[in-house]
Amino acid sequence: MEVLEKYGHGGDWVSAAKRYGMPENGFLDYSANINPLGPPPSVITALQNHLHEMTRYPDPAHRSFRQALGKRLKQDEEWLLPANGAAEAMALALLALAPEKVGVVYPCFSEYAQLSEQFGAQVIGCFGREENGYKAEESQLRQLFEQTDLVFVGSPNNPTGILYTADELKRMAGWTAETNTWLVVDEAFLDFVDEKKAFSLEDSLGDYPRVILMRSMTKMYAIPGLRLGYAIAHPDVIARMKAKQVSWSVNALALLAGEHCLEEIAYEKETRKLIAEEREYLRAFLHKELGWQAWPGEANFLLVRTSKDWTAQELQTGLGKKGILIRSCAMYPGLTPRDFRIAVRKREENEQLMDALREVCEERGRKR
Amino acid sequence: MEVLEKYGHGGDWVSAAKRYGMPENGFLDYSANINPLGPPPSVITALQNHLHEMTRYPDPAHRSFRQALGKRLKQDEEWLLPANGAAEAMALALLALAPEKVGVVYPCFSEYAQLSEQFGAQVIGCFGREENGYKAEESQLRQLFEQTDLVFVGSPNNPTGILYTADELKRMAGWTAETNTWLVVDEAFLDFVDEKKAFSLEDSLGDYPRVILMRSMTKMYAIPGLRLGYAIAHPDVIARMKAKQVSWSVNALALLAGEHCLEEIAYEKETRKLIAEEREYLRAFLHKELGWQAWPGEANFLLVRTSKDWTAQELQTGLGKKGILIRSCAMYPGLTPRDFRIAVRKREENEQLMDALREVCEERGRKR
Repeated sequence: MEVLEKYGHGGDWVSAAKRYGMPENGFLDYSANINPLGPPPSVITALQNHLHEMTRYPDPAHRSFRQALGKRLKQDEEWLLPANGAAEAMALALLALAPEKVGVVYPCFSEYAQLSEQFGAQVIGCFGREENGYKAEESQLRQLFEQTDLVFVGSPNNPTGILYTADELKRMAGWTAETNTWLVVDEAFLDFVDEKKAFSLEDSLGDYPRVILMRSMTKMYAIPGLRLGYAIAHPDVIARMKAKQVSWSVNALALLAGEHCLEEIAYEKETRKLIAEEREYLRAFLHKELGWQAWPGEANFLLVRTSKDWTAQELQTGLGKKGILIRSCAMYPGLTPRDFRIAVRKREENEQLMDALREVCEERGRKR
Repeated sequence: MEVLEKYGHGGDWVSAAKRYGMPENGFLDYSANINPLGPPPSVITALQNHLHEMTRYPDPAHRSFRQALGKRLKQDEEWLLPANGAAEAMALALLALAPEKVGVVYPCFSEYAQLSEQFGAQVIGCFGREENGYKAEESQLRQLFEQTDLVFVGSPNNPTGILYTADELKRMAGWTAETNTWLVVDEAFLDFVDEKKAFSLEDSLGDYPRVILMRSMTKMYAIPGLRLGYAIAHPDVIARMKAKQVSWSVNALALLAGEHCLEEIAYEKETRKLIAEEREYLRAFLHKELGWQAWPGEANFLLVRTSKDWTAQELQTGLGKKGILIRSCAMYPGLTPRDFRIAVRKREENEQLMDALREVCEERGRKR
């Protein structure tokens, strides 16, 4: 049977529709990690009112969006590069810096390795220990910096949701000069982390010209279909990345939506509050009622391990037939066939998921 | 003074607004070659009704659009690669095929050379003769195929609008095997050419595995802000190009719009009729009333040379102050400071342009 993650990711409704014989729009999607509140209403209105922007070329220099972004982040514009999703920003870093060897800490977002290989680099991975939430230890990370030209880390990491601390990030940033290695910190999900816990090297990039931060705007603002991300780094690095970017790579509606998203500070706060509450609600259910392990992630998703007699694949099929999609993590190097990832959504949706999980468990119990 | 083509292209309303102190949306744009009828109404309606598609990831395999495209073109799907604009399709060909030397015929679309250099190739150019509409002669083209690994030709060529004939294209396609050279035919504006004159190698690609056709959907359907193009080539080449494409590179709204565009056959016909009539109307005015030379292009734009005492830059400034944008062609290798390009638009707009041209000429006459 075709796996749902045919193209290596969650959120693939076309494959899901084929596999479960349901309409593409009929799923409750826990397989992609998108803000369950949907796009901010101001963004929807702006797009409705300015749909005619599609009849003109996007600004090749992204001037208006870049200016708004600089203002919001308190960064000079030449430190910023808007991209056609964070995935393009990663690709541009690889094209511009042409690392021969790229380091990753498994399990992690599959694009780190895929893009690296796509653009000719050899991938060297280390494996974090399960009991540390799969975070690599200092000695492992140091070795990775010594062995490679560029290291990807996710903070919070996908699919574990585990954060690197300020100390850990600064230590790695310090190694970049010593070892001549680039550090790419993927902060695609940092927006969802409690502000007291979230740490970014954003304010100290002046000290670390070999550090590049990658951000996504499609998760917090629920616009993955539009594609919008950006990189923050020293202007020399940004210029090298921009030199590899194809003209008009970021579309006009993404730029327009992006500008409006940047003003949605209250919506971001509301989202973080919801995510924090619902994540704990889901985790408690998984742990207490089902007896399953859920790692203490800080993002808008949870990495979960079923009890011994289940595989994530079986669970995915059982839920899929009920119209709920989850992300099997069996294909992540370092994880097991029992691991899966679920997004954190709204209370009523989470209860729907919980009911479906109860049913699937019960149905299975009856069969055995 | 800043040139309007600061980023190498027309249609840059942000630069125009700064230069002329007018609102970005206030220009009549003859500097970008977009269907003056605007997007088909069905496409606008589809986007309005399905704006929520932006909340899901684009299909990484573009299945629905690719299927519709295959049906319309009568091509098997594995011969097709949707791209984030034709510019991305060109970039993917360069990344996949990694030519050391790329051949171009000047004057031509600046992205051929820019993208080639961006991805590390050396550009070798030849110059067509003015009296042949800047089309290169057989011996020049043959030499280009012998000297390079990949040759770009535009048919119709931008900014001249001149077509290659079926014989010329087949001859070049035949050379690809003999000389081990890839041929990329940029057909971005072929949709606008009279069907009796338009020729594509589309139906004989089976004979020419080293030929790649590039198409744009943003010109005919007036959606340049959304970004949508595609490549047609042998499945092996398409697979190599796809292997360099970043995940979710084509956004969800572009894919959605694209599917609807493919059904707009009557709208395409109506556009071609309008363009043919208005192109001749404009050409006659430029030639007879102003005494300026306009090349016999077949696309939805005209390359024009002012009479001796003008520069395109002066003309651009004069028209810009009246809210009309034209494309100076002074920066195209092989052209002169007197050359400019204008799009072909609707009758009332063309009359507005003609009035403005008359005024600019008169104002200048008075000053001298």
